[in-house]
Amino acid sequence: MRFALFGAGRAGTIHAHNIANHPHAELGYVFDIDRTAAQRLAAAFGGQVVPSQEDIWGADDVDAVLIASSTDTHVDLLQRAMRADKPTYCEKPIDLDIDKVRMVVAEAAQTDLPICIGFRRRFLPDFQRMRQSIQNGAVGRIETIHMIARDFEPPSLVYLNASGGFLRDKMIHYFDLVCWLADERPTEVYATGSCLIDPAIGQAGDIDTAMVTLRLSSGALCVIENSRRAIYGCDERIEVFGAKGMLQSRPTQTHQLVHFTEAGMAQSGFPESYGQESFAAALDAFIHAVEMGIAVSPSLQDGVQAQLIAEAAVESLQTNQPLTIPA
Amino acid sequence: MRFALFGAGRAGTIHAHNIANHPHAELGYVFDIDRTAAQRLAAAFGGQVVPSQEDIWGADDVDAVLIASSTDTHVDLLQRAMRADKPTYCEKPIDLDIDKVRMVVAEAAQTDLPICIGFRRRFLPDFQRMRQSIQNGAVGRIETIHMIARDFEPPSLVYLNASGGFLRDKMIHYFDLVCWLADERPTEVYATGSCLIDPAIGQAGDIDTAMVTLRLSSGALCVIENSRRAIYGCDERIEVFGAKGMLQSRPTQTHQLVHFTEAGMAQSGFPESYGQESFAAALDAFIHAVEMGIAVSPSLQDGVQAQLIAEAAVESLQTNQPLTIPA
Amino acid sequence: MRFALFGAGRAGTIHAHNIANHPHAELGYVFDIDRTAAQRLAAAFGGQVVPSQEDIWGADDVDAVLIASSTDTHVDLLQRAMRADKPTYCEKPIDLDIDKVRMVVAEAAQTDLPICIGFRRRFLPDFQRMRQSIQNGAVGRIETIHMIARDFEPPSLVYLNASGGFLRDKMIHYFDLVCWLADERPTEVYATGSCLIDPAIGQAGDIDTAMVTLRLSSGALCVIENSRRAIYGCDERIEVFGAKGMLQSRPTQTHQLVHFTEAGMAQSGFPESYGQESFAAALDAFIHAVEMGIAVSPSLQDGVQAQLIAEAAVESLQTNQPLTIPA
Amino acid sequence: MRFALFGAGRAGTIHAHNIANHPHAELGYVFDIDRTAAQRLAAAFGGQVVPSQEDIWGADDVDAVLIASSTDTHVDLLQRAMRADKPTYCEKPIDLDIDKVRMVVAEAAQTDLPICIGFRRRFLPDFQRMRQSIQNGAVGRIETIHMIARDFEPPSLVYLNASGGFLRDKMIHYFDLVCWLADERPTEVYATGSCLIDPAIGQAGDIDTAMVTLRLSSGALCVIENSRRAIYGCDERIEVFGAKGMLQSRPTQTHQLVHFTEAGMAQSGFPESYGQESFAAALDAFIHAVEMGIAVSPSLQDGVQAQLIAEAAVESLQTNQPLTIPA
Repeated sequence: MRFALFGAGRAGTIHAHNIANHPHAELGYVFDIDRTAAQRLAAAFGGQVVPSQEDIWGADDVDAVLIASSTDTHVDLLQRAMRADKPTYCEKPIDLDIDKVRMVVAEAAQTDLPICIGFRRRFLPDFQRMRQSIQNGAVGRIETIHMIARDFEPPSLVYLNASGGFLRDKMIHYFDLVCWLADERPTEVYATGSCLIDPAIGQAGDIDTAMVTLRLSSGALCVIENSRRAIYGCDERIEVFGAKGMLQSRPTQTHQLVHFTEAGMAQSGFPESYGQESFAAALDAFIHAVEMGIAVSPSLQDGVQAQLIAEAAVESLQTNQPLTIPA
Repeated sequence: MRFALFGAGRAGTIHAHNIANHPHAELGYVFDIDRTAAQRLAAAFGGQVVPSQEDIWGADDVDAVLIASSTDTHVDLLQRAMRADKPTYCEKPIDLDIDKVRMVVAEAAQTDLPICIGFRRRFLPDFQRMRQSIQNGAVGRIETIHMIARDFEPPSLVYLNASGGFLRDKMIHYFDLVCWLADERPTEVYATGSCLIDPAIGQAGDIDTAMVTLRLSSGALCVIENSRRAIYGCDERIEVFGAKGMLQSRPTQTHQLVHFTEAGMAQSGFPESYGQESFAAALDAFIHAVEMGIAVSPSLQDGVQAQLIAEAAVESLQTNQPLTIPA
Repeated sequence: MRFALFGAGRAGTIHAHNIANHPHAELGYVFDIDRTAAQRLAAAFGGQVVPSQEDIWGADDVDAVLIASSTDTHVDLLQRAMRADKPTYCEKPIDLDIDKVRMVVAEAAQTDLPICIGFRRRFLPDFQRMRQSIQNGAVGRIETIHMIARDFEPPSLVYLNASGGFLRDKMIHYFDLVCWLADERPTEVYATGSCLIDPAIGQAGDIDTAMVTLRLSSGALCVIENSRRAIYGCDERIEVFGAKGMLQSRPTQTHQLVHFTEAGMAQSGFPESYGQESFAAALDAFIHAVEMGIAVSPSLQDGVQAQLIAEAAVESLQTNQPLTIPA
Repeated sequence: MRFALFGAGRAGTIHAHNIANHPHAELGYVFDIDRTAAQRLAAAFGGQVVPSQEDIWGADDVDAVLIASSTDTHVDLLQRAMRADKPTYCEKPIDLDIDKVRMVVAEAAQTDLPICIGFRRRFLPDFQRMRQSIQNGAVGRIETIHMIARDFEPPSLVYLNASGGFLRDKMIHYFDLVCWLADERPTEVYATGSCLIDPAIGQAGDIDTAMVTLRLSSGALCVIENSRRAIYGCDERIEVFGAKGMLQSRPTQTHQLVHFTEAGMAQSGFPESYGQESFAAALDAFIHAVEMGIAVSPSLQDGVQAQLIAEAAVESLQTNQPLTIPA
């Protein structure tokens, strides 16, 4: 499967590496408005750097499109890919403007083209097993869900300013996980947040600490905490509690040396990041689904759903009111 | 210290046992409207059963009062104890009617009598150490707090019907713990709840699963989940996260035998209840404070604060609105 | 059951406390050559202090005998108890002279008197469950056993000098546990030891660190490490590994507060001692067995078996040779 | 660094993969008496397949030699490599005949050629950190060491028959780890073993379960358990205990999903193998040492030391006597 890659930034580079290392895939074309970045990437992972996007849409040897460019380009590229009839893997979010999202979804509904949105956390083995266990009845009817996700350190202000805000940029991953794990949609959201870590984040109009409550259609209750910094390392945990039991995904610590002294027991080492391997797994699942002609996951529709929750959460945060999430 | 005990029910019996076993205390008088219960208790732990409360207020050999009778009697007994100038330990809550609570507090403000409210979880060693660690700077400035408290199984409907509801009966303990651990008051509450465990609880107008979000005056965010049933046993956990680290109080499992098989690793045994030993520790702290002439903890004022949060939470649950908590 | 207690030292005091608190038992008589110690104990837990042992053997209101006096008195007291036909609980070891042990066992074989030896670790709930699990097939055929037992700090030299040495004093407990858990006898022992903790222990002719290997009759292999000091607290662990799985008894830590910082995760608190509650459980099992007319455990025969292993281990240590353990 | 690789079996293939993926290395030549295997390997990882070893010794573009052929060829290849003046990485053991080992060591002592023996467990990050911590004083003076290493399942009988026996094949890794971690040599060994897993192993004259005790020169005591099968997965643990504390290397479990039910807590997933990544780390350390002109580790001398311990252990097992280990 020959890929055309849009975007040679951080996510694009990871995808290029994974395409180059996938036995069924190769990098055909690379485009980035920063041509030097595109060339650097192509030197490392193959592919032809093209000066204009049109060179890609006109090429007859492109089998799939990977969109890892800046968010404001996603809708346009999705539309071009649909018109060119190319299976597409698009980084989240679809767009920061929910109206444009609805428009592209309506257009996609006219096709049966595989379009996949990059909620890659679904592909972490722990979460895969958790979902499998839930579906096998391990917790019975779900009553509560707790998610905690804390980054090691905040990203740059440049990144933050283009991110659409904490709820649209980071928490959207967990909105998707809730829907996917519970196989149920949230009907109501209440979001609260603070700027506690870096005043510059607050000055940029964003928050760095968020606590969001969701009510699911079954009445199950869910809370998600996100933080931009955890001094002890990156920390992601999910707990699902129900009538028949509880499942916990425990954080993987990188080192396992335990030291017992007069002061007690000590263990070093949370990682600085978590789940990076899920990029490759998500790509592999996309390639496999396209090859087999089965539905891609997460679908464009999944992407819309998570974004509708995020939009409602943003409004809830602004108005300090719980809000109904549109279906 | 000779105690007069009001109430020979479940809590009264535990207190009677602890008074009888305390080296500085003895049971002087016992009163309960169920005289058989009072006699049974006195037979086991000493003390004279009196037919009327007046026999107690008239006695000159009472050093302290312990109120473990039904909630609707608390305010009257507190007033009588204040007028009789007796140091008093009173089970929570003070009253289900916040106006009566305010009245009794105003009256107490005219005295310097030690009045202690039975938020006994403060006396669990793990939570004591957690607070000590927080005060020693172990987490730095607090950013988020997570509390999970799940009972092994729901209490009787009789109990539930008299309880004032889930938020006033159970969650109030954790409202107190938040104030005490963070040494800060919550300014806003948003409560959400469901009846997921037993429809009879819902028919009685109550919930059995609750998720409550608090915003503290510093901007720190807190979530408390309470459940009336956990099939794997009683489960209480607190996590406090801040700029310099995180503290977790981990649940004590009763058995420590670990079994490794083809299927993985298995360990049995969460307890059916948790923290019962805190009754004795709370009583001991009260006796010690009265003897030494130092402030009792939790004070009547602490009791009011937790109750104001609970009242706001109840209203938030009913109106589905976040509410400001009155100071 | 009225007990006559010999010995008002550390073990005697614990037993007196447990007798006084047992619903079916009371302390009838106390004898110790240190009469002040006997009186102090009787003042706390009841019982009549007698000036001579003969006062006990002549009394007609003694139902059972508890021997917690110094080791060199055990055999004589066991013989007197047998002749007086009194069910007896005797602290380990039976005697440091294996010939005297054999003699008293031969005499006991003529009676059916319940005689119990105080290998109280059998009564720790974790070890009880471990044995139950083994008998239920949890590990299949046993292949290896690992035991680690480290005290918080060494006992006094006075104690050590009268103890019969590390292998007879401490490791004998684990020899008994091996036989009891595996339900099988060791056929061969190899003992090695060092004095690494306190040179004074070495000067007294003893070791403070021991590693003993046992071969069981089935070919299963077992290793026991004992140490007189662990700076992080008392540490006792057992691991049983077999064809179908592994069981581990994990050390109970007293505190469960976990602290995550830049340096990793830290947890305080191993206890200074472990398993003290087993004294009461062992006494209760003895009382129950005598009342019900069922076999006591550990029996005198169990006591002999552990001691034969200990004697072989001592000789192995001295000669640096593996030795066959006599049946 | 152009490598000539001898041996295209399991270890050879792993090394070829790692050479091909190392930025400073490439595969120059491959030799195996099974030419098809050599060709298969070269097709995957590069390198020229030569029909005769002489083609390698005669080539002028070989920078280093990697010996992963069968054990009986090691000494000859080491001698050829020394005479050809090629830095060499040789899989353990050097030879099953200790006299041949001594001979090759004597010859090597005449050169300063870097010769590295493949005790790759030294390069596992947990063990690296453990050694660092020991050297930083984390446990003080070492008193005891416990090692447990259990494979998921036994290798083939073909492998076993050529292996030199359990102590020379598997336990030798842990003999090396003891020397390396404690930075001290063992002076005495006592080995005991059984065939408990597969009678065919016993019929082949080998054992599948071993318990070996070592006394170090300082008096510290060490026990190593090795087993050819653990039904719950591959299990490797090291515990080092000393005057100032204890270090434990805890086994990494592959999955971290924890399930709480009525029956307790369950967790799946020990791996089928452990530490495979150490092949690459060991190779990288060799390349780095040769490039920098620093001493390789583990050295040929380290290989001899582990083998002398293994030989003494074999003799101890056969004679059932503790034996002094020659220096």
